[in-house]
Amino acid sequence: MRIVVALGGNALLKRGEPMTAENQRSNIRIACEALAPIAARHDLVITHGNGPQVGLLALQAAAYKDLPSYPLDVLGSQTEGMIGYVIMQELGNLLPYERPFATLLTQIEVDPKDPAFDNPTKPIGPVYSREEADEIAAERGWTMAPDGDRFRRVVPSPRPRHIFEIRIIKMLVEQNVVVICAGGGGIPTMYTAERKLTGIEAVIDKDLASSLLARELDADFFMMLTDIDAVVKDWGSENARKMRRADPSALRALEFAAGSMGPKVQAACEFFEATGCPAAIGSLRDAGRILAGESGTLVNADVDGLDFFPNS
Amino acid sequence: MRIVVALGGNALLKRGEPMTAENQRSNIRIACEALAPIAARHDLVITHGNGPQVGLLALQAAAYKDLPSYPLDVLGSQTEGMIGYVIMQELGNLLPYERPFATLLTQIEVDPKDPAFDNPTKPIGPVYSREEADEIAAERGWTMAPDGDRFRRVVPSPRPRHIFEIRIIKMLVEQNVVVICAGGGGIPTMYTAERKLTGIEAVIDKDLASSLLARELDADFFMMLTDIDAVVKDWGSENARKMRRADPSALRALEFAAGSMGPKVQAACEFFEATGCPAAIGSLRDAGRILAGESGTLVNADVDGLDFFPNS
Repeated sequence: MRIVVALGGNALLKRGEPMTAENQRSNIRIACEALAPIAARHDLVITHGNGPQVGLLALQAAAYKDLPSYPLDVLGSQTEGMIGYVIMQELGNLLPYERPFATLLTQIEVDPKDPAFDNPTKPIGPVYSREEADEIAAERGWTMAPDGDRFRRVVPSPRPRHIFEIRIIKMLVEQNVVVICAGGGGIPTMYTAERKLTGIEAVIDKDLASSLLARELDADFFMMLTDIDAVVKDWGSENARKMRRADPSALRALEFAAGSMGPKVQAACEFFEATGCPAAIGSLRDAGRILAGESGTLVNADVDGLDFFPNS
Repeated sequence: MRIVVALGGNALLKRGEPMTAENQRSNIRIACEALAPIAARHDLVITHGNGPQVGLLALQAAAYKDLPSYPLDVLGSQTEGMIGYVIMQELGNLLPYERPFATLLTQIEVDPKDPAFDNPTKPIGPVYSREEADEIAAERGWTMAPDGDRFRRVVPSPRPRHIFEIRIIKMLVEQNVVVICAGGGGIPTMYTAERKLTGIEAVIDKDLASSLLARELDADFFMMLTDIDAVVKDWGSENARKMRRADPSALRALEFAAGSMGPKVQAACEFFEATGCPAAIGSLRDAGRILAGESGTLVNADVDGLDFFPNS
């Protein structure tokens, strides 16, 4: 089978843990231990989040006063390098020497007319006081939004339209190469009026980008791995129940958190609707069981409506 | 023809220029304008330096006090991401849309017994006072060495032994993909006693890594592009003369600066000796003329000894 796996940010760094190189590597190692048995039996393409890592680079750049911060496309390309490298090395150590790997920088095109550009929603980088936020907004033209009692920069999160490296990724997957790509949702780019490709100050949702990738690769299975067991209906209420299977129309009728479960559910539905193949959302440690249909929430049409785990 | 081009750090950032994202991009654009006509007619693999960029990341990380700096292998992977991305985008804008590109993270193996580990020579990161240097050396186990009247960290520069991604690079070049790889000399790695691959605190010379790459790819031409016109005999003396052609044995008999022209000359000689194909060292803006044998210093056996430019 051809499988696309999207590793959530929480699979790379546990909530609240300091973002040292060692912590990141040991979390990535755990992720790779879950993925190695899958890679051994299937064609595998891995994508990953980069939120905390871009945040750290932005903090470090802000701390160094001699030079302005690099734009988000460049910071994104740095995180594709650093996270991709560690995944490649750690997973490589768990597979036979002969198995080839490729970590590819990935540019993704967005539409300059995407409505997200009129409504930046994605928080990025350090938190500021109101005074600092006002000053920065005036100086750099950034949009700042409240974050608790402080302020943070928000940037647009446009829809991914086209993955420039898709032909390369296909070529490699067909040769059984384990491909790591589209990290952090891919490097956001668009065409200028002069038809030149250029990077932009935006963040593409990683799960939507991974879903596009899985569709364009004709993947047989698309898995989003995070730190939760399954998609939950009525999350936070006393009626909360974990879904075992869901058909896309029933799932689309529900409401999910905009920044986290919402895009995952959307990404899963879009993949199934386009390919007829299953998508799943579940816990990283259960990757093998999710593939076997024994854990996580499976999105396909085998069930009419929603089906819950017993006693959940 | 199959051509490997190594872009020197000075081709990416002019000496003394502030290292803003804009300056880097505009220098990379100039480099890509020189390379586009070559890419249009030949198979092309591009490598690049990363000295100033790793230096900046180290400065930014040092300025942010809440977290220790990441190790050099991880910083190197970040620079492969950021520099590779900009080269890919700028060169892509100068070639037909159909021409495929791939920027690949590249791990290079070194020998744990390499004598370089007993004699760190490569300066890296910020300069410190003697007191700071002593403190950091004690705290982190770094080797510090004088740099003018200040101190800098020095790290080993072991020889590159094996490029892990070489099969992937070959596969892509055979499909006429423009490949960008082995940035900054590749990410330095070695096997532990337990046969696990791990990153190390070292910097592999970019020209020696590029020469190994060119040999393993059976390249027809290996070009090192920098900000000087040609290799100079008796540099800095009144007898200084620019070489047009040089045979490897005559070249190896001369002395060159250890950190800069020395490795370039060695890389050129090693490529010619292994393949019988020409290597060249010259100015980025002359890339096309170097390929035509009209500029730069060509290293092959067409000349017995050294041959100089007239009036040089």
